[in-house]
Amino acid sequence: MKRIAYMGTPGSFSHLTALEEFGVQQQLIGVKTFAAVFAQLENGGADYAVLPIENSLVGSIYENYDLLNQHTAQIIAERCHRVEHCLLIVPKARGLSDVKKVLSHPKALEQCAGFFKRHPWLEAVAHADTASAAATVADWADPACAAIASAQAGEIYGLARLATKIADNQENYTRFVVIAQQPTGDVEGDKCSLVLSLPHVPGSLAAVLSAFAAEGVNLTKIESRPMHGTPFEYLFYVDFEFARRARREIEELLKLVLHQVTKLKILGFYNGYIKDLA
Amino acid sequence: MKRIAYMGTPGSFSHLTALEEFGVQQQLIGVKTFAAVFAQLENGGADYAVLPIENSLVGSIYENYDLLNQHTAQIIAERCHRVEHCLLIVPKARGLSDVKKVLSHPKALEQCAGFFKRHPWLEAVAHADTASAAATVADWADPACAAIASAQAGEIYGLARLATKIADNQENYTRFVVIAQQPTGDVEGDKCSLVLSLPHVPGSLAAVLSAFAAEGVNLTKIESRPMHGTPFEYLFYVDFEFARRARREIEELLKLVLHQVTKLKILGFYNGYIKDLA
Repeated sequence: MKRIAYMGTPGSFSHLTALEEFGVQQQLIGVKTFAAVFAQLENGGADYAVLPIENSLVGSIYENYDLLNQHTAQIIAERCHRVEHCLLIVPKARGLSDVKKVLSHPKALEQCAGFFKRHPWLEAVAHADTASAAATVADWADPACAAIASAQAGEIYGLARLATKIADNQENYTRFVVIAQQPTGDVEGDKCSLVLSLPHVPGSLAAVLSAFAAEGVNLTKIESRPMHGTPFEYLFYVDFEFARRARREIEELLKLVLHQVTKLKILGFYNGYIKDLA
Repeated sequence: MKRIAYMGTPGSFSHLTALEEFGVQQQLIGVKTFAAVFAQLENGGADYAVLPIENSLVGSIYENYDLLNQHTAQIIAERCHRVEHCLLIVPKARGLSDVKKVLSHPKALEQCAGFFKRHPWLEAVAHADTASAAATVADWADPACAAIASAQAGEIYGLARLATKIADNQENYTRFVVIAQQPTGDVEGDKCSLVLSLPHVPGSLAAVLSAFAAEGVNLTKIESRPMHGTPFEYLFYVDFEFARRARREIEELLKLVLHQVTKLKILGFYNGYIKDLA
């Protein structure tokens, strides 16, 4: 049996992604912080971990990039999970007219602003996360209290699904990576994630990207992150696909790129999942 | 008297930035959503607005990039605001031993994880935002309830400051932009923000950045954003400084770049504020 660490409680989007990826027959270990996810891998408490890395509405999750940068765990796969917000009520509630308070994470409440506008008697109440909002509503068993969370959180905590897809924008995706302490090494892969830093002079980034372009490498993500302690250096998060090249050739390319950067860390070679985003 | 719109309540970081930038003698108008900020500008209810655009720990605020992309308001200035979390208590509380619950935004609670670890009897309670957590604690006037918010929120709501800088990471900055419906046009500026989209073929980004580099333009931000509806197109957010060039020359450069992109929108020419990040 494999042991898979994730941050959150059952019904959280990390938990659902771990379930989808590994199945119910494996042991899923929910921990309280992302740092604890890495600790589980390092102390041998887990074989794999599932980590959210960016969201289409909220952006990159810097904390997890920092942790990947600090630790030796490598990305071995990626998965994209659609975030769907449902209104969950206690089974004995008769309907929306019974509901007064709706609990969820403030970001989820914000993302359902139109729903609250259409139902002005509902009070949005902030909660630490969506899955624990569902757990709390189930615990209270009060028909006046509902939660916004995933459909699966509703099933886990025995709540009834009163409405689905209540967010204003349905194009809400989170990209997760599967990480492991030791990559198996036998994955050829067609995608690579890097963190690199560059001297802050005009053209330094253009030079690196031109080297990638010359090899027919396809950039799928680039993001600069100013470092407040070190004003003349920037971090860059880079993902690229290399379907037309062998991994060995990419490793040679990265050796050359090493001369143009102040730091380069490979976060992993893996198979890109979301082909339609490539 | 100038009228300045911001999203939030008095004591929020947007409010503090508007105060710092425009002073107490102006009329500051707090609204409930970022969309309402733009509506205030468009219906003539405000002359300026202050908008958070990225945070050093959380990343870009995509919602505001989307709104800038959809509306005609232009960036006319930028400001960087350090986020400092304080523990605020009601004046009659004797100290930390009285406190049981601490209210704040979940992100602020997360950012003070070390503080909660050192004071294990404190329960972190999610609230919609930091300033309204302070307002709620003041309203309840219960010595057992405290808030994590800015020092200024404490002053506004008459709370006592029990501890300052309680976040784990002090390097927490939010970059705000000042926007106006019509830029005055007399600002030469030394910085420019763009949104552009590129055909998703190897080298398209490298070509644009090489054109910038050839003009000695200094990139200060680049971020790709995959568009889930349009898989073969990417949005890029780009900021650059052009201290060594005139604005007129940059406008010529952008006319040339227009041939290499599928879309380009200038979000504003303005004077860069944070010289040490340039």
